[in-house]
Amino acid sequence: MKISIYGAGNQKFYIEELKLQEKLGGEPPFGGGAMAIEFARAGHDVVLSEPNRDVMDEELWRKIEEAGVKVVRDDTEAAKHGEIHLITRTFSENTIKSIKNILQHIPKDSVIAICDSTPVIMIYSNVERELRFMRKDVGLVSMCPNAIPGTGMYSRYVIGHKSLDGEEYSTEEQFNRCVDLVKSINREVVIKPIDLVPLITGLSTHITTVTLSGILNYYRMKSLMTEDGEKISEREVLYVLQTISAILETSSIRGLIKALDVDLLIENAKASKLLDEQEDLEAAIHVLSNLSKEFSREVEKCEVKPISVVASQALVEEIRRTVGGAAADGVINRCKKKFLT
Amino acid sequence: MKISIYGAGNQKFYIEELKLQEKLGGEPPFGGGAMAIEFARAGHDVVLSEPNRDVMDEELWRKIEEAGVKVVRDDTEAAKHGEIHLITRTFSENTIKSIKNILQHIPKDSVIAICDSTPVIMIYSNVERELRFMRKDVGLVSMCPNAIPGTGMYSRYVIGHKSLDGEEYSTEEQFNRCVDLVKSINREVVIKPIDLVPLITGLSTHITTVTLSGILNYYRMKSLMTEDGEKISEREVLYVLQTISAILETSSIRGLIKALDVDLLIENAKASKLLDEQEDLEAAIHVLSNLSKEFSREVEKCEVKPISVVASQALVEEIRRTVGGAAADGVINRCKKKFLT
Repeated sequence: MKISIYGAGNQKFYIEELKLQEKLGGEPPFGGGAMAIEFARAGHDVVLSEPNRDVMDEELWRKIEEAGVKVVRDDTEAAKHGEIHLITRTFSENTIKSIKNILQHIPKDSVIAICDSTPVIMIYSNVERELRFMRKDVGLVSMCPNAIPGTGMYSRYVIGHKSLDGEEYSTEEQFNRCVDLVKSINREVVIKPIDLVPLITGLSTHITTVTLSGILNYYRMKSLMTEDGEKISEREVLYVLQTISAILETSSIRGLIKALDVDLLIENAKASKLLDEQEDLEAAIHVLSNLSKEFSREVEKCEVKPISVVASQALVEEIRRTVGGAAADGVINRCKKKFLT
Repeated sequence: MKISIYGAGNQKFYIEELKLQEKLGGEPPFGGGAMAIEFARAGHDVVLSEPNRDVMDEELWRKIEEAGVKVVRDDTEAAKHGEIHLITRTFSENTIKSIKNILQHIPKDSVIAICDSTPVIMIYSNVERELRFMRKDVGLVSMCPNAIPGTGMYSRYVIGHKSLDGEEYSTEEQFNRCVDLVKSINREVVIKPIDLVPLITGLSTHITTVTLSGILNYYRMKSLMTEDGEKISEREVLYVLQTISAILETSSIRGLIKALDVDLLIENAKASKLLDEQEDLEAAIHVLSNLSKEFSREVEKCEVKPISVVASQALVEEIRRTVGGAAADGVINRCKKKFLT
C-alpha cells in the first residue's frame, strides 16, 4: 500500500530527555521514524514527511532511508502519495493547519489515521467544513500504538472509526485498510469505539488509570461502610468528576487549583488514608505536594466562575425530549465541539 | 447551645477494622461519640441519638455519659431538642428517612448540619418537598470535620451554606450558629462554597486527590512535548473526565470497567510511564491490577450504553440561551438532581 507518514519524531527529545531506551527498551529511531521503517520493510511504499532535519542525527536518517523510505520535507509532497495518511505528530494548533493543507492534495478516498490519543472529534470539529463540503470522500480513523513505536513495549494498535453513539468517521473499507496495514506488520489489532481510544492509549491513559483507580478504591471503601454502598458511590463519584470538570471548563487549571484549595485538600486527604490499599492516594498526595507549586503562579488572581453541576447525560436526554429534532442535535453537536475548538 | 447529634459511630468498625488508633492516633470513641463529648465539655447541652447500643462497649458509653451527654435511642427525642442538628451517619437511603422524620419534630429555625462529605444537593433533592412546603424555616449546612473526630488528625471543620452559583441552603444566622459552635471547641473554621465541600473533605478526597494529581502530571508531560500544551491539555482532560463520567452515568461501574477494557488499559498505561514523577500512575496500575478482579463479576454481561460526550457547562449555557427563563431553570435543576435521587 501507499503510505504517507507525517512527523519522524523528535529523537533528541526521545533519547536524551525521555531516555526511552533505558525505560522501555528498543532502539531509535522512535515514533514516526520507526513506523516508516517497519511499514517499508513489510513491503509498503512509504513517504515520510519531516520538515525539520535536525530532529535526529544523519546516522538515524540513513537507517530510515536504507529501509526504503522516501523522506521529504514538504507535507504537500507526502499528501499526494498515500492511500493511508498517518499523523504521528503530537497534537497542537499546527496539526490542524497541516491536516487542512493535506486535505487539499490527498488522493480520492484516502483515509487519515490519527496516531496519537487526541480525541477524533477534536480533529473533526476543526476541519468539519473541509470534510463536509470539499472532501466527503476522505475518512478519519483513530489508530494508536500502545507504546511509542520502536520501544520494546510497542506491540499493538488500538483502532476505531465508529463512536458509541453511532457516528462513523470513515467507511468500512477505509477502516479495514488501516486494520490490514497493522496486520501486515504482525502487530496485534484491537478494535474499540473511536471515542474511547483516547482514554485507553497514549499519554492520557495516565488520567484514565489514576481516576479509575480512585473510583474503584472509593467504591471499595464505601462498600465496607454502608450496605447500599455501590449505588451511593456511583452518585458521589459522578458528583466529584462533574464538579472537577465543570470548574476546569469554566475556570481553567488554575481556577481548579484555587477552588480545591490544594494545601487544604492535601491535609484532608492524609486523614482519609485509612486502608493499605489506598496506595494510589499516598502517591497522589506526594505528586500534588511537589507539583502544585509549579502551577501556583497566578492562582491567587484567578477567578473561580459559577458552575452548575449537572448529570451531563441526563441533560442531553432532557434536550432531546424538550427541544427535540434537528434543533436538539444542533445544540448537542455544538457542545460536543465546544471544548475542542 | 442545644445540640442534637445523630449517630454515635460504629466503634467496633473504627477500632477493629479500620484500626483508627494505630493509623491516625487519638482515642475512642470516634465519630459522633467524640463530637458529643467535645461539645458537652465546651458547655453545650448535647443529646446523642443512637438506636443501636451495640456499636460500642459499655465503658465507652460511660465515657460519653460522664461528659454530660444525654444518650437517647430515638431520633424523635433528639429532634425535639436541638438548635443545631448534626447528621454524622454515613449517607445511605436510611439517612433520608431519618431526616424526613427529624423534620417533623425539630424546633423552629433549626439548622441541620451534614457532617459527612455527601453533596448537600443530594440531601436537598430528597427532602425538597418537606423543606419547601412544610419547613421553610429550616436550613441546611455542610459541616465536615477534616478527619474522623477523636483521631489525632482531627483539627478543623470545612463549612459552607452557599453554592458557587449563588444558591443558599440556610440563612446567614443559621450558618453563623454552626461557625460559632466550631469556634466554641477551638477547632479551626474553613469556609468554602457548599458544593465544593464534598470534594475536599471526607472519603471523597480520595477521588479528588488522585484525579487532580493525574491532571497536573498530564499537564506537565504535555508542556514538555508541545508549546501550546496547557490549552490542549485542558481540552483533553475535559474529554477524558466527561467520557468517564458519562459512561458511569449511563452504564454504572461495571459498564465503565468493560468500556475501558481494564486489562488493556493497564498494559497501555505501563507504556506511558515515562517520567519518575508519574508515581501516581505506578500506584494506580498496582491498585487496578488487584481491584479490578473484585469488580469483574457480571462485567461481561453488562451493556455499555450510547453516550454523547459534551462540555457540560457549555450545554448549561446553551439551554439558558435557547430555552431560557424558568423553563431552562427547570431543566437544569432536574439534571442537578438527576444523579442524586
